[in-house]
Amino acid sequence: MQVNIKLAEVKDRNYNVFIDELVKINFDTKVAIITNPTVAKFHLEEILSRISAKEVYVVTIPDGEKYKNMDTIEFILNECFANRLDRKSVLIALGGGVIGDMTGFAASIFQRGIEFVQIPTTLLAQVDASVGGKTGVNSKYGKNLIGSFWQPKAVHCETKFLKTLPSREFSAGVAEIIKMAVVFDKEFFEWLENHDIRDGKNLKIAILKSVQTKAKVVSLDEREAGVRAVLNYGHTFAHVIENETQYKRYLHGEAVSIGMVMANELALKLGLLNNEEEIRIKYLLQRYDLPIDYKIKSAQDFYDHFFLDKKSNNNQITFIFPDNIGGYAMKKEIDKKLVLDVLKDFE
Amino acid sequence: MQVNIKLAEVKDRNYNVFIDELVKINFDTKVAIITNPTVAKFHLEEILSRISAKEVYVVTIPDGEKYKNMDTIEFILNECFANRLDRKSVLIALGGGVIGDMTGFAASIFQRGIEFVQIPTTLLAQVDASVGGKTGVNSKYGKNLIGSFWQPKAVHCETKFLKTLPSREFSAGVAEIIKMAVVFDKEFFEWLENHDIRDGKNLKIAILKSVQTKAKVVSLDEREAGVRAVLNYGHTFAHVIENETQYKRYLHGEAVSIGMVMANELALKLGLLNNEEEIRIKYLLQRYDLPIDYKIKSAQDFYDHFFLDKKSNNNQITFIFPDNIGGYAMKKEIDKKLVLDVLKDFE
Repeated sequence: MQVNIKLAEVKDRNYNVFIDELVKINFDTKVAIITNPTVAKFHLEEILSRISAKEVYVVTIPDGEKYKNMDTIEFILNECFANRLDRKSVLIALGGGVIGDMTGFAASIFQRGIEFVQIPTTLLAQVDASVGGKTGVNSKYGKNLIGSFWQPKAVHCETKFLKTLPSREFSAGVAEIIKMAVVFDKEFFEWLENHDIRDGKNLKIAILKSVQTKAKVVSLDEREAGVRAVLNYGHTFAHVIENETQYKRYLHGEAVSIGMVMANELALKLGLLNNEEEIRIKYLLQRYDLPIDYKIKSAQDFYDHFFLDKKSNNNQITFIFPDNIGGYAMKKEIDKKLVLDVLKDFE
Repeated sequence: MQVNIKLAEVKDRNYNVFIDELVKINFDTKVAIITNPTVAKFHLEEILSRISAKEVYVVTIPDGEKYKNMDTIEFILNECFANRLDRKSVLIALGGGVIGDMTGFAASIFQRGIEFVQIPTTLLAQVDASVGGKTGVNSKYGKNLIGSFWQPKAVHCETKFLKTLPSREFSAGVAEIIKMAVVFDKEFFEWLENHDIRDGKNLKIAILKSVQTKAKVVSLDEREAGVRAVLNYGHTFAHVIENETQYKRYLHGEAVSIGMVMANELALKLGLLNNEEEIRIKYLLQRYDLPIDYKIKSAQDFYDHFFLDKKSNNNQITFIFPDNIGGYAMKKEIDKKLVLDVLKDFE
């Protein structure tokens, strides 16, 4: 199966997402695979056997979100310069979201931009980071604050890579799949209620459906001027949670799971969601052992933290809500008291 | 006077270069002016009086090419985050090429890209860096190896800023003007032979002509897939010279002056240029006290150095030559012995 990602804004930047196609990766230039030791152990050998290129280098970076910073970007770039990669060279991201985000960013600024290919090895990266061209690193001021929009040349999603994935990481990916269904596709949500995507055949369908949904959104709005922001459903809350817990306690998808529950509480108060729908979403998240609760230390601090997030233009936050299941609402002016009330429920 | 820069490749990325228009700079968002102490002393006050914005911050970075690196980019970004600039904010580059290149790069990766405005205060920056959207910093492996293509929102060139410019820096800018004339415009070259551009009125015409020429080239080929590479006439040699002298002995334009003379020697041997033309170019460079000679330590080392330069795709260098005055030739396969012969003339 494959999905063609068409980007309206930029010519010649369309690309394919291959799902379980096991295609060969051929380049007549130098390539560098960016990976980490954990992923390399399981998958590097196989990928090497499928790549044909002029020269192949492997750049290994430490595993973990805490290395997603400018120092690691400089390390990747320097390895590429040392191996004399040039403007025609290609970077290949072999790993999860962190590897993908950093490889894309490094590719976008290496000699003012070279091509890159994504081979996402986590479910989250396959359904989320694989489409959209968002690249970047964290800064001490927040998550993903430094980066670029840079589209891959191709994305290769393979469900067999997910067999080595710890179940917590698998579930974190499911959170983003559920997110996509809740705000964009009622039918898909109902399908998810009736199918266990831990089953291989269902998994492939769920990945395809998520990639298609995200592709549609991104093709309409590559630079997040409008509808693409809906993908941030749950994320405004999740980013604060991740920041408060120093990116240690929760996986990104887990924080998004809690963030969706928080957004839903607010949506309930705004009359966008009814009780039954709220419970159905919670139930689906729980089926994959995703967290749905978080103890907020101070509602006021949590609220203030929103404004440090990069999504706040001129100190305004855009909240994303489900509008019943399958629809969305974007709201800029939400009464502070109402938000604090919801946050206090989590104190 | 103003020149509209139209970029074919990307929608909504056209912008104006204003020459001596003294326009007001109005934004309803936060702006940060990136400058250095030398430039700030002469021009900051006036620019501040012409800017109206929601909030205006000034970020001062040390003066000099040696600070054109990733550390300074991180410093700029952190200052912007600390002042809570957001996705709607605008960076303003007030300074020469180094300030312009770094501000553009910082703008391109701040929250995946925000707008920036250029106010170039050197002749080189006005005629060269102001058009084309090349941004970036140096790495320990070479010049401008890390960066992006990012177009400014507007460029304000003002000849009055050039009055405080040391004459060596002025001449360095003239080198790029001469470069543009030699490979693109015979009439302009002859005009330069007959006019002293140290005179204010002529200066304005020369800037306009250079900006127009470069704009035409860049609009045809933003990402340097073809004709834009012609702007690198003299630069292949210049980069090695600058590297060998650790960017200390020569200003960039001075190195380009020598680089053009070297390229011309090779063009002579290839029959692209005749003796009289070669001398006319040299004579024009000398009129502005530009260097035309450089003592090469080892022709072989100099030659090897070419391949470290980012312009070498798959270890191939593209040499740019004048094809008589007013024309150009791009050549990929030049006999190594021929190049070494020319380099040995400079030993």
